[in-house]
Amino acid sequence: MPLPVVRTVADLRAQVRAWRASGLSVGFVPTMGALHEGHLSLVRVARGKADRAVASVFVNPTQFGPNEDFDAYPRDEARDAELLEAAGCHLLYAPAVAEMYPQGASTTVTVSGVTDPLEGAARPGHFAGVATVVTKLLNQCGPDVAVFGQKDFQQLAVIRRLVADLDIPAEIVGAPTMRADDGLALSSRNAYLTPEERAQAPALHQVLQALLQSLRDGESVAAVESLALDALARAGFQKIDYVEVRHPATLERLGPGPATGPVRVLAAARLGRTRLIDNVGD
Amino acid sequence: MPLPVVRTVADLRAQVRAWRASGLSVGFVPTMGALHEGHLSLVRVARGKADRAVASVFVNPTQFGPNEDFDAYPRDEARDAELLEAAGCHLLYAPAVAEMYPQGASTTVTVSGVTDPLEGAARPGHFAGVATVVTKLLNQCGPDVAVFGQKDFQQLAVIRRLVADLDIPAEIVGAPTMRADDGLALSSRNAYLTPEERAQAPALHQVLQALLQSLRDGESVAAVESLALDALARAGFQKIDYVEVRHPATLERLGPGPATGPVRVLAAARLGRTRLIDNVGD
Repeated sequence: MPLPVVRTVADLRAQVRAWRASGLSVGFVPTMGALHEGHLSLVRVARGKADRAVASVFVNPTQFGPNEDFDAYPRDEARDAELLEAAGCHLLYAPAVAEMYPQGASTTVTVSGVTDPLEGAARPGHFAGVATVVTKLLNQCGPDVAVFGQKDFQQLAVIRRLVADLDIPAEIVGAPTMRADDGLALSSRNAYLTPEERAQAPALHQVLQALLQSLRDGESVAAVESLALDALARAGFQKIDYVEVRHPATLERLGPGPATGPVRVLAAARLGRTRLIDNVGD
Repeated sequence: MPLPVVRTVADLRAQVRAWRASGLSVGFVPTMGALHEGHLSLVRVARGKADRAVASVFVNPTQFGPNEDFDAYPRDEARDAELLEAAGCHLLYAPAVAEMYPQGASTTVTVSGVTDPLEGAARPGHFAGVATVVTKLLNQCGPDVAVFGQKDFQQLAVIRRLVADLDIPAEIVGAPTMRADDGLALSSRNAYLTPEERAQAPALHQVLQALLQSLRDGESVAAVESLALDALARAGFQKIDYVEVRHPATLERLGPGPATGPVRVLAAARLGRTRLIDNVGD
């Protein structure tokens, strides 16, 4: 049976209202489509947490920078719908840009602090776009629980922050990163990699894992960050935006000495024209 | 029977959830306390629109400027609760500042465009404070309908904008300004006026009404604004921030010729140390 699709806030709310009237809870998985096993694992988490699972597919223009890949971002709704249906999703919400941002829309949600470093520094305006669209999507759907991947670790921290700060009545669940057998984190952008780049790409995860192990062995933050930077360059990564040890909730810097508390190690770097991000932690 | 009071989001939601489980709809009236007949009229509107009425009293620090009257703003919760109870309110939500803004809170809602002129120009940061706290309050309470006064006309326009833009699932109702017999708009800040200033204050409404009548008689926007400015100065108003004819939804300027469509006429001016605002329209 093909997955039911709604394209308007009104239709989405009508379905969610009907489920609630039947006493069913609702889990929500916002995505930008181009689905892979990582997204489908989020759907399975949502199904484990709620009676019904809704996925949204919306390539949000406001979180792409002027020189980023909004136009090129892969879109294949029919394939996404098939994958979602097979993963046990009950409803696909696929709004048009005009449904999300009608003429005159002029409200922005911004989060300070946790958005400043890493992706926030590399992609100006990115997190304001993310925060605004996630606020909208959560208010449109009104789920009991919403599931986001740890792959976009800083995004998850930003969403936890805004949901707490704006009192959005949904539980936020972070789900573990899915990886290929060679360790490469699954990402829609992996499709951009040439065969040669795809062979180099797993080094990102390997370097992060080695860095984490060195930290656990008592090496200093400054030393492991420096070694990781060299290792990524040697592995063929060109523009290394960051490879850093940070606090897992606030994303504040640690160090430069040995790490004592919980850590998250995050990196972003380019292979050719493709920018990859990954992170590991305790 | 004294009005029930809750002070936490959890307790507020528990009561609203219980009402919903009984099939009752919920109306909400956010206030900063220091209640007068204007606020009570909003409670009555909420009661007409919903089965249960919740009022909040929270003097929101983030919408006051550094040189404004946050500390001096009048607070009398016992009196507010009595007035609300007599007006048919069912629940008072009176959170502490730490409940609304816990340590680490770092999310802001901003609305562009409609916030730029008038109060937005006179009070930098004011509407970001308003937009953020109203987003929070609406998400905390989850009402079917929320009622705001037309007295703060630009604030009402900002709230309509953000509720639409962030897809907050509540109907926003604007209620007419309540006035003293001599026309002065009821305001908590009227308590600051000396007897002499109180006698001068009704001129603000009289000038706005005369301006609106002149517009209807075909006078040009530029001419009536200029005459109104002179009239306010003659009536004893000192710092006149604005007296302007604007579009009622976008608050964009009209003119300078005769007005053809709907208008709102808005003014802000000081009598001594007290800043008064008022507006009239079609």
